[in-house]
Amino acid sequence: MRIDVLSLFPEMFSGVLGESIVKKAQEKEAVEIHTVNFREYSTNKHQNVDDYPYGGGAGMVLTPQPIFDAIEEVTKEAVKPRVVLMCPQGERYTQKKAEELAKEDHLIFICGHYEGYDERIREHLVTDEISIGDYVLTGGELGAMVVIDSVVRLLPEVLGNEDSAMKDSHSTGLLEHPHYTRPSDFRGMKVPDVLLSGDHKKIAEWRDKESIRRTFERRPDMLETHELTPVQQKWLAEIKAESNEKK
Amino acid sequence: MRIDVLSLFPEMFSGVLGESIVKKAQEKEAVEIHTVNFREYSTNKHQNVDDYPYGGGAGMVLTPQPIFDAIEEVTKEAVKPRVVLMCPQGERYTQKKAEELAKEDHLIFICGHYEGYDERIREHLVTDEISIGDYVLTGGELGAMVVIDSVVRLLPEVLGNEDSAMKDSHSTGLLEHPHYTRPSDFRGMKVPDVLLSGDHKKIAEWRDKESIRRTFERRPDMLETHELTPVQQKWLAEIKAESNEKK
Repeated sequence: MRIDVLSLFPEMFSGVLGESIVKKAQEKEAVEIHTVNFREYSTNKHQNVDDYPYGGGAGMVLTPQPIFDAIEEVTKEAVKPRVVLMCPQGERYTQKKAEELAKEDHLIFICGHYEGYDERIREHLVTDEISIGDYVLTGGELGAMVVIDSVVRLLPEVLGNEDSAMKDSHSTGLLEHPHYTRPSDFRGMKVPDVLLSGDHKKIAEWRDKESIRRTFERRPDMLETHELTPVQQKWLAEIKAESNEKK
Repeated sequence: MRIDVLSLFPEMFSGVLGESIVKKAQEKEAVEIHTVNFREYSTNKHQNVDDYPYGGGAGMVLTPQPIFDAIEEVTKEAVKPRVVLMCPQGERYTQKKAEELAKEDHLIFICGHYEGYDERIREHLVTDEISIGDYVLTGGELGAMVVIDSVVRLLPEVLGNEDSAMKDSHSTGLLEHPHYTRPSDFRGMKVPDVLLSGDHKKIAEWRDKESIRRTFERRPDMLETHELTPVQQKWLAEIKAESNEKK
């Protein structure tokens, strides 16, 4: 996979691209990532990339020219790249979208910063608009890093066995059960007896039930779309009864 | 505000903390940010920070000791710090939460990486568990950067007038209307006439209506909780009629 990131602050990416899974993935040649400062494509004599909005109002708007020319350059040899605009008006990012993007050969991210985007960028260049959540960020850079991390870790051979074996909350559809490790008594705080019992059936049941309990308590919306097994339905009924008793 | 970030990959933060709004905020002394590698607090002779899970299974679990000791150190002189665990099981992050955290004096973030957290960290240290969205990331670091960016930009005097004047989709409750800037004709792609008309009333109406149109088309869920003015209700009725005609 090839990834190009258009940003006025390419230095923001140095820490994230140079560490952790994204670094590993580049070393394994599973992905090649380039950052492009689209200011360098500005034909304006002051290398401006934004201008006042038509119709007036506060705030600046990114002009089409530098972004059109930068995209043209990075897509010269590309076959159907996905051009992703990071913006608050985009579709809300999900694991399903990460899985979809992980199948592509070439992803391009456009990151604005403070400014709005000229609508013609949206209409004529962009294939996907993505928002990582309902909160206000200063720019699209952090969003692009989030999408890149979540996509790159899905590429074949990027995750080792150990890492990938970890159950991920948003890939199983339920929140994870609690974890405990040594010591069994840490400053008076103890590990539940069942986990020390060696009874694998009981441990599996405890984990299954606690996973449902956590999902029920914290993210009941996830239970609406998740199909529970008959045993899990029994756990859920028990959990609901226990929660009513407490009230 | 003081922020401490506990992470095994403090280098990941260098780009983001050294650029953009977070850099500006530190220069203005609105915030002081420290990264802490909690591996340095491990009393284990190999400086290990994780161990096998009780009850068996794949994946490693972060042990309580290094994190308890690191938190103890950074909270020594703190008055009621908020200790935020970045994790997929946390509450979904929103702008409202950003506004709440922006009122605090001291935030501490705990970032895991691949591993799960020993449940005793959750139960005894943590005041808030946050997830930035329903997708799987390799670690809590990117989530912490997202929360830090969104909180820091809300601190007094951090944003200049120009920046803060920009209407933010998730603070007005509606998605933004389209923006256009010069040239009015870019490679045959034109700016809507109304924006060039100089008729400020019509421009304001167009923007109001397009903002509602975009919200209706992309995020109808946001309209359910947003109270529309009578004029906006009229726009919405028109937009719905127009969208039915197209079908």
